[in-house]
Amino acid sequence: MNRSVIRFVLAHIMIIEGVLMLLPVITGLIYGEEVYKKYMAVAASAVCLGLILKWKKPAKMTFYLKEGCVATAFSWIMLSIIGCIPFLLTKEIPSFADALFETVSGFTTTGASILYDIESLSHASLIWRSFTHWIGGMGVLVFLLTIVSMTGGSSMNLMRAESPGPSVGKLVPRIRESARFLYGIYLMLSLIEYLCLLAGGMTVFDALNTMFATAGTGGFGIKNDSIASYSATLQWIITVFMILFGVNFNAYFFIFRKKFKELLKLEEVVWYFAIIILSVGIIFVCIGHSDGTFSDAFRDSAFQIASIITTTGFSTVDFNLWNSTAKTLLVFIMFCGACAGSTGGGIKVSRFMILFKVLKKEMNLYVHPKSIKEIQMNGKPVEHDVVRTCSTFLITYMGVFVISLFLISFDNFDLTTNFTAIAASINNIGPGLEMVGPSGNFAQFSAFSKYVLMFDMLAGRLELFPMLILLNPAIWKDLQRRVRK
Amino acid sequence: MNRSVIRFVLAHIMIIEGVLMLLPVITGLIYGEEVYKKYMAVAASAVCLGLILKWKKPAKMTFYLKEGCVATAFSWIMLSIIGCIPFLLTKEIPSFADALFETVSGFTTTGASILYDIESLSHASLIWRSFTHWIGGMGVLVFLLTIVSMTGGSSMNLMRAESPGPSVGKLVPRIRESARFLYGIYLMLSLIEYLCLLAGGMTVFDALNTMFATAGTGGFGIKNDSIASYSATLQWIITVFMILFGVNFNAYFFIFRKKFKELLKLEEVVWYFAIIILSVGIIFVCIGHSDGTFSDAFRDSAFQIASIITTTGFSTVDFNLWNSTAKTLLVFIMFCGACAGSTGGGIKVSRFMILFKVLKKEMNLYVHPKSIKEIQMNGKPVEHDVVRTCSTFLITYMGVFVISLFLISFDNFDLTTNFTAIAASINNIGPGLEMVGPSGNFAQFSAFSKYVLMFDMLAGRLELFPMLILLNPAIWKDLQRRVRK
Repeated sequence: MNRSVIRFVLAHIMIIEGVLMLLPVITGLIYGEEVYKKYMAVAASAVCLGLILKWKKPAKMTFYLKEGCVATAFSWIMLSIIGCIPFLLTKEIPSFADALFETVSGFTTTGASILYDIESLSHASLIWRSFTHWIGGMGVLVFLLTIVSMTGGSSMNLMRAESPGPSVGKLVPRIRESARFLYGIYLMLSLIEYLCLLAGGMTVFDALNTMFATAGTGGFGIKNDSIASYSATLQWIITVFMILFGVNFNAYFFIFRKKFKELLKLEEVVWYFAIIILSVGIIFVCIGHSDGTFSDAFRDSAFQIASIITTTGFSTVDFNLWNSTAKTLLVFIMFCGACAGSTGGGIKVSRFMILFKVLKKEMNLYVHPKSIKEIQMNGKPVEHDVVRTCSTFLITYMGVFVISLFLISFDNFDLTTNFTAIAASINNIGPGLEMVGPSGNFAQFSAFSKYVLMFDMLAGRLELFPMLILLNPAIWKDLQRRVRK
Repeated sequence: MNRSVIRFVLAHIMIIEGVLMLLPVITGLIYGEEVYKKYMAVAASAVCLGLILKWKKPAKMTFYLKEGCVATAFSWIMLSIIGCIPFLLTKEIPSFADALFETVSGFTTTGASILYDIESLSHASLIWRSFTHWIGGMGVLVFLLTIVSMTGGSSMNLMRAESPGPSVGKLVPRIRESARFLYGIYLMLSLIEYLCLLAGGMTVFDALNTMFATAGTGGFGIKNDSIASYSATLQWIITVFMILFGVNFNAYFFIFRKKFKELLKLEEVVWYFAIIILSVGIIFVCIGHSDGTFSDAFRDSAFQIASIITTTGFSTVDFNLWNSTAKTLLVFIMFCGACAGSTGGGIKVSRFMILFKVLKKEMNLYVHPKSIKEIQMNGKPVEHDVVRTCSTFLITYMGVFVISLFLISFDNFDLTTNFTAIAASINNIGPGLEMVGPSGNFAQFSAFSKYVLMFDMLAGRLELFPMLILLNPAIWKDLQRRVRK
């Protein structure tokens, strides 16, 4: 394996993280908080270490899928470890497992928290916590691709390892341009949301935090009751933007390029909205009687569904108190997830679409055994490889789920807590049901279970394989071998 | 579609059921119970109706996979409807939904019950209830094939629709011989168990009932506490036979033919025993402290694991009271199921093996992208079609599971109850956890939920597709069309 190119990528990521940590430094300075010094120290160390590591340029810049996966997995683990140091230094989260959990949860845009009193954190730490969502949402390697030029085909392997969805299509022929487009759309949408939140009456600090957490579909709140204490208008604004960040970014690209015909062909987006509308309807019927006025119930339904399907994880009500049908639907929606190519997690609408079409085809084979129909999506035939990868993904996903469920069962909590804790982690949502519901917390799990959940969050964010190949001994043997020149 | 051949099959099934109903008639006569008259009436009607329907022989006896599936699904539904009539006539189960539930649960070898006081039933009804397990275990269409000769290739479609497992292999070239071999092994094993139970001190009536329920991996008990009140020796005998009936019957065929080399190649059987030993070990560690002496804890672990993995569903303890790890493992084992080609239900060990091998291959592709390895089982390469069918099965299975879970959530029970009720039905086990645990009951579900669960039991027993194609409108249109001659 080409180790030097992995080192090169890691060095860059380290520098980028150091630079990004200036945001909490500045926030600390503005609010006159002493903690800014700790952030400054970590930021400076990261940048220095990164500069030293990247000194020697690798002889060969090309790398294959395995290097892409390993580099991605290592990058995310390193990001999280460096990112959690300030929490330890400021003693706001004194235990390493907890601090790492909170940071992994941040970068993977999960939003599951071990904090009981969020409001007691310093402004610097609050903004760093929310900022990790924003960084993790679009992906830090995609960001790297926008600034560092790598040789064509090989950088695709980096992007493929980090980007969500069954198949990664390049928006434009050059990968660097694609990455820039994605970040451009991301920045623009974020800015619009920020302005809307300000217009809706939020303070600058709250709006910035909320925007970060919405854009990355993360879900860390800065209030103990998440979003419940904000006005109805603000809740609606957040609902709309959660849904928008769950849309396949290709859609925005087509809008930007005025290719409206292509836009209408995006089946996944149509299904995504259909699922949202249907689910909001069902939840509205389920909670209609209990949740105050008509408009309250409608807003609560829409907010919670938008939050769960986009895997954001904000809440305005304690949905753990809803009836069985509503909770069952929420659990389904947890697995469904948002569109591929968005910042949302989960299994992704497009994967379910492909599997649904496969089943439809198989069922028809019973009636018309000789008919040969190919599966189509967006008006184009779906390649056999994509279908195979889809099934493999789902089966692997279940494997990881089952093993994780068994491992955290040692804590002896009830099955619903365990099941939804894993579901909320691997799908990068945040809250689950029962003890990990909106009013609950992940702090009660043992350190061992927390590491299992962290693995699941990373596996979920990186779509399983980059994390799973780290469990393959062959990869570690390969890593010890120098690449032949 | 060739309707007349479906009618012909149904007529035969009706006659067979009528004849089989003589067992409760005789039991009733022996115990001097009035209910025997009701059984006699139903049996006579079924035989007469069957004889009338089979009068006109179909012009063409060949039928394709779709006819095989439809005939199988209709046969099982008809079996259950006729089989539940005595319960209604004797007023032992007055509601139609309940009586049908109990009968579907019987024929599908599920063993889920809506009865609170089993011991109050008449001997005739008790034996009919247990006997449905035995009939359903090996399959009534397989039985039909042993007595009625149909033209070669087409009868394979009947057997394929009813037999469990990813691929149905013929034991011997002729299908009729294969069916006879299977029934021969089934009868012999049943007889041995019966004699062992008698030797262990059971009464003739209890031994017959318990043998029926074990052989079919059904799980209806004739005591309110299932098997708990029988002696330790009897519990061990039942444990051993539950495990034996969960073994792929090909193994017995090889033993019978003295092909011991072939026997050792049966990977599925090796895995099956490995899973049992591992699970018993884990459960033993989990419950070791709470369940009395060493030997009690060991026996309880072995009994419960054997009962769940073979999808029998007997119990000697209330495992709903076990700790979270033990319960989580039990839920996994529920889905695992027994070997293909046994009388057990569930997803089947061989399917998991194939999927596991697929994943291993995929993971290796990341390290050695150019290696092409084919998947092997029992020393032979697995055909691509079998792998595809396996993934399709699992995805379809999850689809049915999810929709059922949503439908029964209207009853507003807790998520664990609903989840395990579906798991226990679709995997043909019987008891689940919480309200449907060993000391619980399915009676509390609404009639609507009961029909959903019945559908799941049938779908699980017939491996999904025969039941699912009944939901396809194209099949019904096809049924209305006469076959061209």
